[in-house]
Amino acid sequence: MGKVYLTGAGPGDPELLTLKAARLLAAADVILHDALVSTEVLSMASPAALLVDVGKRCGTKLLTQDEINALLIAYAKEHDIVVRLKGGDPALFARAGEEITALRDAGVEYEIVPGISAAFGAAAAAGISLTDRRLASQVLFTTFSRHSSGGDLGWRMIGKATTVAIYMPGSDYGDVASHLLNAGVTADTPCVIVSQAGGKKQSLRWTTVAGLYDAEKLRAPALLIVGKVASRNAQEVEAEVVLELLEKARAFSPEVNPWSRN
Amino acid sequence: MGKVYLTGAGPGDPELLTLKAARLLAAADVILHDALVSTEVLSMASPAALLVDVGKRCGTKLLTQDEINALLIAYAKEHDIVVRLKGGDPALFARAGEEITALRDAGVEYEIVPGISAAFGAAAAAGISLTDRRLASQVLFTTFSRHSSGGDLGWRMIGKATTVAIYMPGSDYGDVASHLLNAGVTADTPCVIVSQAGGKKQSLRWTTVAGLYDAEKLRAPALLIVGKVASRNAQEVEAEVVLELLEKARAFSPEVNPWSRN
Repeated sequence: MGKVYLTGAGPGDPELLTLKAARLLAAADVILHDALVSTEVLSMASPAALLVDVGKRCGTKLLTQDEINALLIAYAKEHDIVVRLKGGDPALFARAGEEITALRDAGVEYEIVPGISAAFGAAAAAGISLTDRRLASQVLFTTFSRHSSGGDLGWRMIGKATTVAIYMPGSDYGDVASHLLNAGVTADTPCVIVSQAGGKKQSLRWTTVAGLYDAEKLRAPALLIVGKVASRNAQEVEAEVVLELLEKARAFSPEVNPWSRN
Repeated sequence: MGKVYLTGAGPGDPELLTLKAARLLAAADVILHDALVSTEVLSMASPAALLVDVGKRCGTKLLTQDEINALLIAYAKEHDIVVRLKGGDPALFARAGEEITALRDAGVEYEIVPGISAAFGAAAAAGISLTDRRLASQVLFTTFSRHSSGGDLGWRMIGKATTVAIYMPGSDYGDVASHLLNAGVTADTPCVIVSQAGGKKQSLRWTTVAGLYDAEKLRAPALLIVGKVASRNAQEVEAEVVLELLEKARAFSPEVNPWSRN
């Protein structure tokens, strides 16, 4: 009986694989990968490895999660090193839960090998901190597309000091903006859409929640970062925060105005 | 003028460095690192590199953030490759914001090189998905210690389908539990404390929010994962969710009971 490594492929750039993931790809007997995993990452695999694309149509039929689980177990019975390669990190929006349950039930040993999740690739591409402590104290990693039919998105906790990283924002950014406004996020809150972070076709759009209604649609995979940190120049936003405080202070004592020479 | 690479060192295991981070460490002229970065990771540095520990006391004086910023700029003026090595990922709870502003103001080129953030190391160590879609739809990355003096943690109404990953939970887990209860998290919500994830001294404690009051204190760095996913066997929690639904259904029609033979 072999072992299954639920392995993070990162955002696409093979240089963002971990040393452990690279070593496993080079040693794997079988690699079952999602459609989103880049060809550059797959080229790191051993030439002897069997590559199985479980994310696209196989013939005329799409593989179900149950079929993927069954394949993982079947390959683990025949081979020593089975790599289940997922974009980003296996523990975040990667449907690892069902595979872990199936492997446990079948008595197959498994291990999670972390990867760089998309939000970190996007933050690096934008050159920003997700929790710049002058502007944010926490970050919510959430999705949109899986809920696009409506219902509770669970965005009740979004405060002014919370950055929101939205995975799979879909193609209707205006719909996302409406849900953000409903959750109490203000229309002038900065946003950045990052498409294909770290890849050759990487593109970024700096805007605001209000601006999302007219924002150009970027190619998937894309990630939307919402919050004061999501500004091309967070320093300018910080200056605005200071100005707001000064305005409030002036309401109490006009002499606080630092530009006054009197 | 050189370039500063704000680089993620990951949770401690050198195998969890990215290929890019490993390449930069081997090529760096100067490496300014935090105290939390492991000796195993630092051993990946070029023997010719100047290693500067900016996270501990230097002589009798602790370096301030302004002093670290000044050092980064000074080294970038003298050397080609300056690596600013931070535990986890530079964009999450790593004080990169101030360094980015300082580098921009000084006209020094910079790049963020992502790393595996502590929550992903902890999830891998616990063998769980942070967003097992049967139990959670999103995850909040937050901290406790920086707010330990009280005040608004921004934990407003944490929903049942939100996993919470708490960085730097401090030594008073009971205080954390009280804040979670105030935010509407129920006392029986599963938790796992992961200490030194991926390292030789890794340890885990599976408990509940109520159990945090009596939980053994684990060595820093530690991370606390709170939510239905944070169970040694998420499948059992899922079964309980199904049982709860069955109980509700039985209140309406007793014959829903699948164990009844009548």
